[in-house]
Amino acid sequence: MARLVEFFFDFMSPYSYLAATRVEAMVGPAGGEVGWRPCFLPAVLKATGNQGPGENPVKLPYVMKDVVAWAELLGLPPLVIPEGFPFLATQADRCALVALDEGKGPAFCKAMFNTIWRDGRTPDEAAISDVLGAVGLDAAKVHALASSQPLKDRLRANTDEAVRRGAFGVPAFFVGDELFMGNDRLDFVVRALARS
Amino acid sequence: MARLVEFFFDFMSPYSYLAATRVEAMVGPAGGEVGWRPCFLPAVLKATGNQGPGENPVKLPYVMKDVVAWAELLGLPPLVIPEGFPFLATQADRCALVALDEGKGPAFCKAMFNTIWRDGRTPDEAAISDVLGAVGLDAAKVHALASSQPLKDRLRANTDEAVRRGAFGVPAFFVGDELFMGNDRLDFVVRALARS
Repeated sequence: MARLVEFFFDFMSPYSYLAATRVEAMVGPAGGEVGWRPCFLPAVLKATGNQGPGENPVKLPYVMKDVVAWAELLGLPPLVIPEGFPFLATQADRCALVALDEGKGPAFCKAMFNTIWRDGRTPDEAAISDVLGAVGLDAAKVHALASSQPLKDRLRANTDEAVRRGAFGVPAFFVGDELFMGNDRLDFVVRALARS
Repeated sequence: MARLVEFFFDFMSPYSYLAATRVEAMVGPAGGEVGWRPCFLPAVLKATGNQGPGENPVKLPYVMKDVVAWAELLGLPPLVIPEGFPFLATQADRCALVALDEGKGPAFCKAMFNTIWRDGRTPDEAAISDVLGAVGLDAAKVHALASSQPLKDRLRANTDEAVRRGAFGVPAFFVGDELFMGNDRLDFVVRALARS
C-alpha cells in the first residue's frame, strides 16, 4: 500500500509551486502517494513567529532570483512572478479544498500553480474560474462553496494542523510524523519513504 | 585561472560546517577556488532583520534534525550538536583570519569546524588552541592577535561586506557579484562557475 506524503502548500508560495511540479514524480516511485493539503501561509508564519521570504526586503530580491534559478534547474518553463507579488491566494486555497472533494484536487492544484507561476496571473477570481473550468468544475458553484463558512473553517483547520505538527512555513511535507520543510528537502522525503 | 568563490561563514553555523566539508571538492572541478571569509552571523542577522534558525523555538528543533540528516546524506560522520548550542564562535572566527594570514586558513577552518560539529566541542579557548596546535600554529600568539582591535575590526569588515553585498545569513557564496545562500545552494554555485 502506498505511503501517504502530506504536502502542505499555499498557492502564494513559489517554492510550493516548484514542489508541486515534481512531488508526485518523486514520491511515486518510492512508494508514496501525495495528499494535497492547502493551507494559509501567513497564518502559519504568524503562529510560529517565522518570517516569510516576502516579509524581508533584503531577502525578497534574492528569493525572486532563487525561484527562477530553481525552475531553470528543474527544466521547467521560465518562472514568471506575477505583478503585486507577494499577494494572498486565500480563495484559490479554499477552491482547492472543494476541488479535492470533487475528485479533481491534484489537477486543479497543478493547473492553478501553473496559471500563477508560469502564466504570471495573480490568483484573482477570474484566473481561478479559468482553472476551475479547465479541469471540468463549475466555477460559480465552486466559488460559492469556497466562500462559505465551512470551507473557511476547513482551510483554517489545515493551517492549524500544519502548525500543531511543527511546520513553520510551506511547502511542508509529512511522512507519518516526520516533517520536511521546503522544495529543497524533497530528496529527504524520498529517503524517508525508502527507509520505511 | 581559477575563479574565486567567496565563502562567508561563521563557525557557530552548522550549515556553514556542512558547506565547508564539500565546497572545495565541488567548486574545484568547476574551475573555482575557495576564498574563506569568516564573518559574525549574529551581526548579519541583526543588520538585515533576518531571523536565525536558533532564534525561533519552533524552527530550532527542526534545524537540529535537518543538519544531522544532511551529514548522513553527505556520508559524513554523525553530526554532533555541542552542548549550549546556539553559542557564539567570535574568537574562532577571528583566529581564522589570523590563520589565513599565516597560510593555514583552509586547514584551520576545516579542523575547527570538525572539532565543533563532529567532536561536539564548544569553540572555547581550549578547543581553539587544540586546533591551532594541530595545524602548526602557535596558539598563544594567535589568540593574542585575534583579541586585538585590528582583528576585531577585520571580522566586522567581513561582516559588513557580506551584508553590503546582499547576504542575510551564512553560509553565503559569491561568484563575482552573484550571491547564493545556504549549503543547499552549492549546486547553483557550481552551475554559475560552469556558465562563466
